[in-house]
Amino acid sequence: MVSHLVSEVSTAKLHGILLGSVGPRPIAFASTVDKDGRPNLSPFSFFNVFSANPPILIFSPARRVRDNTTKHTLENILETKEVVVNIVNYAMVQQVSLASTEYEDGVNEFIKAGFTMLESDLVKPFRVAESPVHLECKVTKVEALGNEGGAGNLVFCEVVKIHLDAEIIDENGNVDQYKIDQVARMGGGWYSRANLGLFEVPKPISTLGIGVDQIPKHIRLSSILTGNDLGMLGNIEQLPSKKEVQNYINENRELRTLISSGDPNNLHKKAQQLLKSKNVLGAWMVLLAENEI
Amino acid sequence: MVSHLVSEVSTAKLHGILLGSVGPRPIAFASTVDKDGRPNLSPFSFFNVFSANPPILIFSPARRVRDNTTKHTLENILETKEVVVNIVNYAMVQQVSLASTEYEDGVNEFIKAGFTMLESDLVKPFRVAESPVHLECKVTKVEALGNEGGAGNLVFCEVVKIHLDAEIIDENGNVDQYKIDQVARMGGGWYSRANLGLFEVPKPISTLGIGVDQIPKHIRLSSILTGNDLGMLGNIEQLPSKKEVQNYINENRELRTLISSGDPNNLHKKAQQLLKSKNVLGAWMVLLAENEI
Repeated sequence: MVSHLVSEVSTAKLHGILLGSVGPRPIAFASTVDKDGRPNLSPFSFFNVFSANPPILIFSPARRVRDNTTKHTLENILETKEVVVNIVNYAMVQQVSLASTEYEDGVNEFIKAGFTMLESDLVKPFRVAESPVHLECKVTKVEALGNEGGAGNLVFCEVVKIHLDAEIIDENGNVDQYKIDQVARMGGGWYSRANLGLFEVPKPISTLGIGVDQIPKHIRLSSILTGNDLGMLGNIEQLPSKKEVQNYINENRELRTLISSGDPNNLHKKAQQLLKSKNVLGAWMVLLAENEI
Repeated sequence: MVSHLVSEVSTAKLHGILLGSVGPRPIAFASTVDKDGRPNLSPFSFFNVFSANPPILIFSPARRVRDNTTKHTLENILETKEVVVNIVNYAMVQQVSLASTEYEDGVNEFIKAGFTMLESDLVKPFRVAESPVHLECKVTKVEALGNEGGAGNLVFCEVVKIHLDAEIIDENGNVDQYKIDQVARMGGGWYSRANLGLFEVPKPISTLGIGVDQIPKHIRLSSILTGNDLGMLGNIEQLPSKKEVQNYINENRELRTLISSGDPNNLHKKAQQLLKSKNVLGAWMVLLAENEI
């Protein structure tokens, strides 16, 4: 490992390391108005949801590292205590990036970036019509984390009304994770399009897996199986019995051939294949068949 | 749009909408110890970086929506005020999911999930050897956002020491955004592997693009060009002159053929191709050649 004592690293360098390390970061495309009602629109990736009850989002328009100035968004929020957080999808990312341009005070980034202003129901700032989700928020608190360049300013946003594009709602009423097509910020100039990397992991919330520590040693120390393979195997609640394994072997000609090869690695490779297709029980049957070699 | 007034939605439903809408969410794989030094390890996706100076991460071990209980991680932090935030890559995601199992108090998830405990330099909690980035933190504050099920608990973490796997550092000393191979949480049981969706957008921080509003109308209202195309076009600082366009046409036989077709759409399609390969100036040359039709 390469280690850095934070007190010995410059703010600019630290900023780069933190942005390169913590990600992908969701994007709050924040719409505000100043006290005269003039709109502003800017993206922030120091952002996430933190609570469902009350429903609280936090984003941070940080003080600029290079000159310690603050953003129009922050000034507007301190004046009016309202914001609409719009979610960013792939189809709008180039315009969102354009809206992050540091135009002068009073320039309307809806117009500069070519977005459509949509009136909100409960707050003054406009919604971005092109965005798939609009979260109308009342700002309950703004908390400065420091007063030098790079200092964050936490904006606590209580969501009061949510608008979802009907196109992204699935047949169960949930937000379809492919169709919402979110993008996120990474380090440097990098973004990630979330739905190109989607995969599902069964939630272990209601089960109590045996754990990797309870996996028999000859399997746990396999040179074939990966950490992810062991994680899936450890999430089973109970191992199949000797009798179940025997029945499985009797019904499975391919497995009998692998056993007769006399090489445990052949069984581990077969189990890994089964794990790839999410057949955890099948993988366990094959691995426990090793006792028959 | 489908709209929900937050006050009329159940916490469970609201929780699902927020987690389906705000993402992909980075994962804090939080290592803590209780007052007797017993380790705990659990993942949290209500997490992000919020400030570089001071370097502050925040994550939220929320009260469970279903029974309003809190997590061991929160109890340990209240007792000891220290945490190591480990970053999660694809190779460890199944074990991380296993560590989110609700094992009894005192169970060591390092052992249950099969991770290696590595001593920290400045805090008591252990680092996860398999993780590509370890952030040793002092907890400066814990803030409850409510006291009912679903309420967040903000843990303010000041980073004091950072360890980076040498393998993920590029030749300029930055964190390589492919090699770090982060995964993030989405709605339901979904995760996203960030580096499968990576793309780069030139930062407009130092430039002042003309804006989409300054793009000539016959281009802005094109039926071919997308919002992303317009965003890229609007990020140019100055349009090429009439003379530059004329020179470009003279040197470009393919373009002369497109012009002689008499159909502006052919030029728009060509410009779109050039934008795909990030040649914004070339795209502008082709689009402005429309005046020659």
